[in-house]
Amino acid sequence: MKRINIGLLGLGNIGSGTYKVLEMNRGRIEAETGLDLRVKRILEMDTARDRGFAVPPGAFTQDMDDILGDPDIGIVVELLGGIEPATSFMAAALGAGKSVVSANKAAIAENYELLTAAAAKGGAELRFEASVGGGIPLIGAVKEHLCANEFTELLGILNGTTNYILTKMGEEGRPYDDVLKEAQSLGFAEADPTADVEGHDVANKLSILMSLVFGRRVRPEEIPTRGISSLTKADMDEADGQGCVIKLLASAFRTPDGGCECFVQPTLLNKGHPLADVRNEFNALFLKGNAVGELMLYGKGAGPFPTASAVLGDVIAIARRL
Amino acid sequence: MKRINIGLLGLGNIGSGTYKVLEMNRGRIEAETGLDLRVKRILEMDTARDRGFAVPPGAFTQDMDDILGDPDIGIVVELLGGIEPATSFMAAALGAGKSVVSANKAAIAENYELLTAAAAKGGAELRFEASVGGGIPLIGAVKEHLCANEFTELLGILNGTTNYILTKMGEEGRPYDDVLKEAQSLGFAEADPTADVEGHDVANKLSILMSLVFGRRVRPEEIPTRGISSLTKADMDEADGQGCVIKLLASAFRTPDGGCECFVQPTLLNKGHPLADVRNEFNALFLKGNAVGELMLYGKGAGPFPTASAVLGDVIAIARRL
Repeated sequence: MKRINIGLLGLGNIGSGTYKVLEMNRGRIEAETGLDLRVKRILEMDTARDRGFAVPPGAFTQDMDDILGDPDIGIVVELLGGIEPATSFMAAALGAGKSVVSANKAAIAENYELLTAAAAKGGAELRFEASVGGGIPLIGAVKEHLCANEFTELLGILNGTTNYILTKMGEEGRPYDDVLKEAQSLGFAEADPTADVEGHDVANKLSILMSLVFGRRVRPEEIPTRGISSLTKADMDEADGQGCVIKLLASAFRTPDGGCECFVQPTLLNKGHPLADVRNEFNALFLKGNAVGELMLYGKGAGPFPTASAVLGDVIAIARRL
Repeated sequence: MKRINIGLLGLGNIGSGTYKVLEMNRGRIEAETGLDLRVKRILEMDTARDRGFAVPPGAFTQDMDDILGDPDIGIVVELLGGIEPATSFMAAALGAGKSVVSANKAAIAENYELLTAAAAKGGAELRFEASVGGGIPLIGAVKEHLCANEFTELLGILNGTTNYILTKMGEEGRPYDDVLKEAQSLGFAEADPTADVEGHDVANKLSILMSLVFGRRVRPEEIPTRGISSLTKADMDEADGQGCVIKLLASAFRTPDGGCECFVQPTLLNKGHPLADVRNEFNALFLKGNAVGELMLYGKGAGPFPTASAVLGDVIAIARRL
């Protein structure tokens, strides 16, 4: 059994979910991979909260140097969210030769060059499967299994909150405000829903996908982005009359001159399209590759357990090579 | 640039497709991976056929020892199909320390223990993404990105011929014999369609998935298997009346006692199920994992180019580590 020590940054919802899934499935992971994955240190201010599991004594720290300076820690898992201090911590870990796994779409999208350069320079690995599409293994698919393809088209439903709202508006004929309030009460939407409903969250994710699928660096703020907050019942009815549904799509295409176009906007999708049936909080990525043809990957794009699935998949991929 | 020499077994439809995709996307593969992949030798009797591309002079051989004995060849790509001589050739290559990529569901399903043991003994890698689900990266997803999950359920549409026939029977109200003849004339069904329509092809694929998803070795002939040849228009109409469609499913579940059940049979699927919308020749795998939740991977399950996508994805994964 190969022991791998992890430094975990953040023990909020996603961090706690990752800790729980690791313990819950420890037997399966050990049997499948021969890896004994241990969370050795946890960077977290809130050490008192009852999370439903016991953290080993002495694991908590409020000093990032305790993790950076520990030669036994080979992998840093960044689940703080937000651009800073997450970016600085990831860059410091990579600079110290530690591999990094992150679920942080905002930090990765904003600082893609800086972080990939820090990984290359430190001889370490940076993985961020959970940053786009939650538990759906779409980054791994594109970067590894499908990398013999030239991609020509990408369409993504990459935000569960807006897809939930659009599904309810379309299927139940309810107005936007009403469904948003319900989504907030169910925990599918935040008190300030701007980043979701105005499409900024999707623009971060599309920015990351543009680098991986088309090899083009496009900053989130360069992506033309329109959200769903002005959509009405009349829009939904008109779409239905045309045999379509409205989805908030991340779209990207290769143009005939060899360039790329990409944008985030509410889009009419024919009801026969594979993405049209992606309902409620589910996410999906639809791709066209010049060898594989049409491909769709579908699943839960958020939540502690689906995110943990992707985070631990990345941890295991790195740990196998350490 | 790292040069990797390949020994290709078989230059039929799938072999030719793989050769073509490698040449078509050589620039992308080199830029993405730094790998210069070269087909050095090709084991093939039919050296005269015009395949639409030129094979380098001296590449063809009819002697497997020319490949086994060539120390420059690190990867053997087996695209012969059928159980023998494919199994013996793969075992010999693995025994010689060469890694093997195969699209051969029959040989892998029948000789799983023998081939995985030969790989372990030879210190070589055996990959077979293309053997199940064609271009859909489902084996990679299960073995790598999702390996922190315990899986509880698997449902697959894993045969394009039967899915095409069932789609046409259901949507156009046509009888089985009529649609089968059309599928044969379109090249979606073989002259002798038995392996497809009686479910044996799906049983091979489910046998492979049982090892990977549930860690259980189940031989294809041990899987209770029923095909679609006795289905009638009345069956389709009855399903429709219940809000369902009929799909030929590979199914597997974990049982409460810790065991597993699996079978291949025509199955009623509620029209709201993600698999119900998988039409015509498309394939899809639906999984439930205890972390990731519901997941579906959808795409082309057969054909020279989708198969080539998976074969080359495996070749690249091995070549990166060589």
